[in-house]
Amino acid sequence: MFFASDNGGPVHPQIMQAVTEANEGYRTGYGVEAEMDRVRDMIRDVFEAPEAAVYLVATGTAANSLALATLCQPWETVFCSPVAHIHEDECNAPEFFSGGAKLTLVGDSDKMTPDALRRAIENEHTRGVHGPQRGPVSITQVTEKGHVYTLEELRALTAVARDYGLKTHLDGARFTNALVKLGCTPAEMTWKAGIDAVSFGGTKNGCMGVEAVIFFDPAKAWEFELRRKRGAHLFSKHRYLSAQMLGYLADDLWLDLARQANDTSAKLADGLRQVDGVEFTTTPEANLFFAKLPRRLHQKAFDAGAYYYIMEGELGGDDPEEMLLARFVCDWSIGEAGVEALLNAYRA
Amino acid sequence: MFFASDNGGPVHPQIMQAVTEANEGYRTGYGVEAEMDRVRDMIRDVFEAPEAAVYLVATGTAANSLALATLCQPWETVFCSPVAHIHEDECNAPEFFSGGAKLTLVGDSDKMTPDALRRAIENEHTRGVHGPQRGPVSITQVTEKGHVYTLEELRALTAVARDYGLKTHLDGARFTNALVKLGCTPAEMTWKAGIDAVSFGGTKNGCMGVEAVIFFDPAKAWEFELRRKRGAHLFSKHRYLSAQMLGYLADDLWLDLARQANDTSAKLADGLRQVDGVEFTTTPEANLFFAKLPRRLHQKAFDAGAYYYIMEGELGGDDPEEMLLARFVCDWSIGEAGVEALLNAYRA
Amino acid sequence: MFFASDNGGPVHPQIMQAVTEANEGYRTGYGVEAEMDRVRDMIRDVFEAPEAAVYLVATGTAANSLALATLCQPWETVFCSPVAHIHEDECNAPEFFSGGAKLTLVGDSDKMTPDALRRAIENEHTRGVHGPQRGPVSITQVTEKGHVYTLEELRALTAVARDYGLKTHLDGARFTNALVKLGCTPAEMTWKAGIDAVSFGGTKNGCMGVEAVIFFDPAKAWEFELRRKRGAHLFSKHRYLSAQMLGYLADDLWLDLARQANDTSAKLADGLRQVDGVEFTTTPEANLFFAKLPRRLHQKAFDAGAYYYIMEGELGGDDPEEMLLARFVCDWSIGEAGVEALLNAYRA
Amino acid sequence: MFFASDNGGPVHPQIMQAVTEANEGYRTGYGVEAEMDRVRDMIRDVFEAPEAAVYLVATGTAANSLALATLCQPWETVFCSPVAHIHEDECNAPEFFSGGAKLTLVGDSDKMTPDALRRAIENEHTRGVHGPQRGPVSITQVTEKGHVYTLEELRALTAVARDYGLKTHLDGARFTNALVKLGCTPAEMTWKAGIDAVSFGGTKNGCMGVEAVIFFDPAKAWEFELRRKRGAHLFSKHRYLSAQMLGYLADDLWLDLARQANDTSAKLADGLRQVDGVEFTTTPEANLFFAKLPRRLHQKAFDAGAYYYIMEGELGGDDPEEMLLARFVCDWSIGEAGVEALLNAYRA
Repeated sequence: MFFASDNGGPVHPQIMQAVTEANEGYRTGYGVEAEMDRVRDMIRDVFEAPEAAVYLVATGTAANSLALATLCQPWETVFCSPVAHIHEDECNAPEFFSGGAKLTLVGDSDKMTPDALRRAIENEHTRGVHGPQRGPVSITQVTEKGHVYTLEELRALTAVARDYGLKTHLDGARFTNALVKLGCTPAEMTWKAGIDAVSFGGTKNGCMGVEAVIFFDPAKAWEFELRRKRGAHLFSKHRYLSAQMLGYLADDLWLDLARQANDTSAKLADGLRQVDGVEFTTTPEANLFFAKLPRRLHQKAFDAGAYYYIMEGELGGDDPEEMLLARFVCDWSIGEAGVEALLNAYRA
Repeated sequence: MFFASDNGGPVHPQIMQAVTEANEGYRTGYGVEAEMDRVRDMIRDVFEAPEAAVYLVATGTAANSLALATLCQPWETVFCSPVAHIHEDECNAPEFFSGGAKLTLVGDSDKMTPDALRRAIENEHTRGVHGPQRGPVSITQVTEKGHVYTLEELRALTAVARDYGLKTHLDGARFTNALVKLGCTPAEMTWKAGIDAVSFGGTKNGCMGVEAVIFFDPAKAWEFELRRKRGAHLFSKHRYLSAQMLGYLADDLWLDLARQANDTSAKLADGLRQVDGVEFTTTPEANLFFAKLPRRLHQKAFDAGAYYYIMEGELGGDDPEEMLLARFVCDWSIGEAGVEALLNAYRA
Repeated sequence: MFFASDNGGPVHPQIMQAVTEANEGYRTGYGVEAEMDRVRDMIRDVFEAPEAAVYLVATGTAANSLALATLCQPWETVFCSPVAHIHEDECNAPEFFSGGAKLTLVGDSDKMTPDALRRAIENEHTRGVHGPQRGPVSITQVTEKGHVYTLEELRALTAVARDYGLKTHLDGARFTNALVKLGCTPAEMTWKAGIDAVSFGGTKNGCMGVEAVIFFDPAKAWEFELRRKRGAHLFSKHRYLSAQMLGYLADDLWLDLARQANDTSAKLADGLRQVDGVEFTTTPEANLFFAKLPRRLHQKAFDAGAYYYIMEGELGGDDPEEMLLARFVCDWSIGEAGVEALLNAYRA
Repeated sequence: MFFASDNGGPVHPQIMQAVTEANEGYRTGYGVEAEMDRVRDMIRDVFEAPEAAVYLVATGTAANSLALATLCQPWETVFCSPVAHIHEDECNAPEFFSGGAKLTLVGDSDKMTPDALRRAIENEHTRGVHGPQRGPVSITQVTEKGHVYTLEELRALTAVARDYGLKTHLDGARFTNALVKLGCTPAEMTWKAGIDAVSFGGTKNGCMGVEAVIFFDPAKAWEFELRRKRGAHLFSKHRYLSAQMLGYLADDLWLDLARQANDTSAKLADGLRQVDGVEFTTTPEANLFFAKLPRRLHQKAFDAGAYYYIMEGELGGDDPEEMLLARFVCDWSIGEAGVEALLNAYRA
């Protein structure tokens, strides 16, 4: 009954198997091993991007920070949602890796709108050398609130960026959860929609710790390699990153895992709707959603061993009917049994 | 016949097993999982340092850079050998993580001497606010040339640092290779010798990618945690770092692996001494040494599939008798068979 | 008819005289000259702060950035108004000097309220190591919109900061304009109101280019000196900074100049109120205010040689009745003649 | 009798006059005032470089750090002499402004030789992504030891840099002292000799605090402007920097002042050679030289009020015959009277 995050569960056996299988013989490492050549080919294939620069790092924050730093000058500002992971959950890593760039918060919800983005960009225009300069736009797909941008929405945002000559980055920590929700191709959700660089997440979708950074224009590939090394994110035994990604991409496992997570999430949402006293504040779209439940229900679940985060309200209160906002995240492994266990706890 | 580095070989099965075994159930991650509690206890035990702050990261450069940044202000200079990994092989990562500190090169060999260190420190004393300020001393054990500081030498260096109120860092990427060479305890080689912080390497000694950072005085523990997160080096699925370290420390595996590597290295050196035309430029002390061989011998080895680095001279030359300097590094896995294969190639 | 900024006018003759008089003989410079000893004494006197650390730099951005960097860790966030100079007009200098700290925008107007500040601080509390850590609060007095915090308002803000153990910085680029408006002492507007560090502006109030940075607790004085030198803001011929400040503080010139600027501003506002078609959007409190005028009036002024900024609306438009928002700033030198000239242009 | 530095004396009256004359009327400032247009024209003229980008800052460290940061990526290393001001006397400012670049020390004296430079560059070539990347070469003219590179020597150094595609920076804090020594044109000593960017010093040669940064290729002009603003080195009342430079360049004052300083220095050296017990360790070439004198002579000078630095040996010693190394620097203002006073003190 672990619904706190999609990074709390086990690695999928197929990925662990790939890691184990890679544990034979010797490699120069540092990303020049044969496994990485295969990873690069597979990702270029999957993204229909034969020229793309493809790199692996071990954390989502590294992927985001290094990608943004490569797209951004220190005197620029990155446009992003006020609840973006890069703003709220990376302890100033984007500021660190970029050498002191700023983040400009666009609008007041998890999904940026083209109008809000345009206003934010326009607002950075009258100060010449005095103000921060306009930098890249970073879009989180799936958002931190569990929403999925449609292809139309993505294209509208990148069109605004393009109007101002700005680059775009997609924080795809939950890339595949969005992809299977939209039922589109990776190319459609990225470069065909105007995206320049992607953090293509593996960790939250069954891997041990691996994220790909993809630049569709390889012009800054060498700069990225230097930034990765300087950031201490170049692995000597890189084959174990490569192997994870190989296991992840093989036989469409990545798509299956995201579908499982999304389906589990939908089932949990359906079940919760039947529970007396539950209020939904967002519509579940991928593998992450929010709902309000009275304290007495949470207490039953926690007593039964469930684990998830309360985002508003505190558990220490007295009123059993007070509604507390919870975040539920499902990974590939939770499954029907996990959902049933949690629902049973509420129903008890 | 891979002698290019001790990070090119496979992960030891016991460590891989520990990783696989950790792949059960759910964890909050981020280093607060139960596995990390056990790691912390084991390392405190091993180092006889019950108060030590203990953290895990995945690369040696991360361990060094984060440890040094925690000990160093941006306007200070780190004292180290001119061939230190932090100077030559980290693409300015220490400068990056410290926010722009300098590195002052001490003496002209891999081992710093107390006199050279004192002179280098003294040389940074007359400029008041104008010059860099004196910062920590970083000592590499085993050095990049394969030498091992004796306990007396370590104590003499830290005594100089202490005379000036400077902190000391031990870059222990090959910590255990030095430890078994010296036949002392981890405490003797660190805090009892005056060391304040250690990069305790696992990757080069049979792990997949894990290094511990240990501060004997935990005063800056929270600062380190923030630096690690900001540097994108805090793993969500941290259990797989913890598990590696647990497998590594269990049943003295770490000591056994280092002994194997050192013994293999000694055997290779012994064998090479019997090969006609070989000149030793350094005495092998741990698992890394240098030797000069005529081009014709290298060619035989390379033709037979051997892999190691030529440090001086280039392979494209003509003169079969030209002496080329080679670096030989043995990891735990090479073993007698690997050594024999290489020696046979030379003898052929 | 220059109302674009209070940094566009001449240096007051008394200050220029002080600079000229300092141009005799030899000094060691770098702030250890006798003139700086007198500056330090005078500022400690003026602020009733005999222990304060006092430094001079040449630009307001240097004063703010160096002061904040000294109060702030790179993983922290500075709380400030969304229109603060440090956010909008310093091209990421605070981010640069702090090594990548963030700025958190408090509320949606130029004056922060205690409630908005508390909410902003509280909002940074639940993420542990993941989010930015709470850093200092920076208050701009006079605000960028020309408003002056009352002593009660200042005390209320610093009380909130103190509740969370946060330091406070006062951006006093127009310190003296606020001081004479409030009719209080420098001590009352700073340390007695809970302020820890001040950028005490001289440049906008008749100097050539000098700002004092004052820390009431001198604990970080040496760190500031190193930051200043490292930031290339330590002047070799420092006597000319000291001399400016001596001339500025002598015979209450600083107070007189601010009073002149404020009075001129009040007169301009009074006159504008009589001009048909003018709308005031803010109440003038110091030497800076905003008003809306129809395009046809602006055109008359610009044709007559007036210079000031249009903040909303563009001059290229057609509609003579369109209201354009203008910012008027008066320095010490404009005087009644300048005001009359501008008013006459409108009246023409 | 101030021979400690050429930044300890007064501003030349013609320059002070220019500052005073600029103190009329209003300017937008920030370097867009008419005075700066004239400065730009004059410097382009003087350097025969009609396309050059020209900027002013107030300190030599700012000029050097901002120029180098513009030429250098954070993962690169700057090649310079081990006694370069950027290495020894700027408290890590180049590291700070560049975002963490390294400085590689070339050879072991104040003047870099082409061979030593080539060796240092070659030494940074075998590590691929692991080591620092090769960055710009910074040449100090006059060196910190008072030597002047000949045009041939400059051309030989820049030729080495060009062989590797590296940019070159000239730290010309004492640019004009070298220029008049060589008797060449500014173009010959810079772009015609292969220099890409120059710190053209004014402060040490009679100005109050102004240095020009000149890029012969203006491609990075806008980047420099952003770096200058972000570094808090863009002056609002910029006219007073411009005015200094105008006064400095008018009627060849800059050349006259440097000649005076050099001549004074030569006279001092000549006089010292007549003093019994003095040993010269370097040949005076510009306005700065070193000599060894017995303690008893220094004591006489100090007792008479002379001020200069002892670089080796300490004043507190006992032996009146111990030779102490002194540095003598002459500025434009010392003149024959100052020299005579000092020599008389020794002779007394």
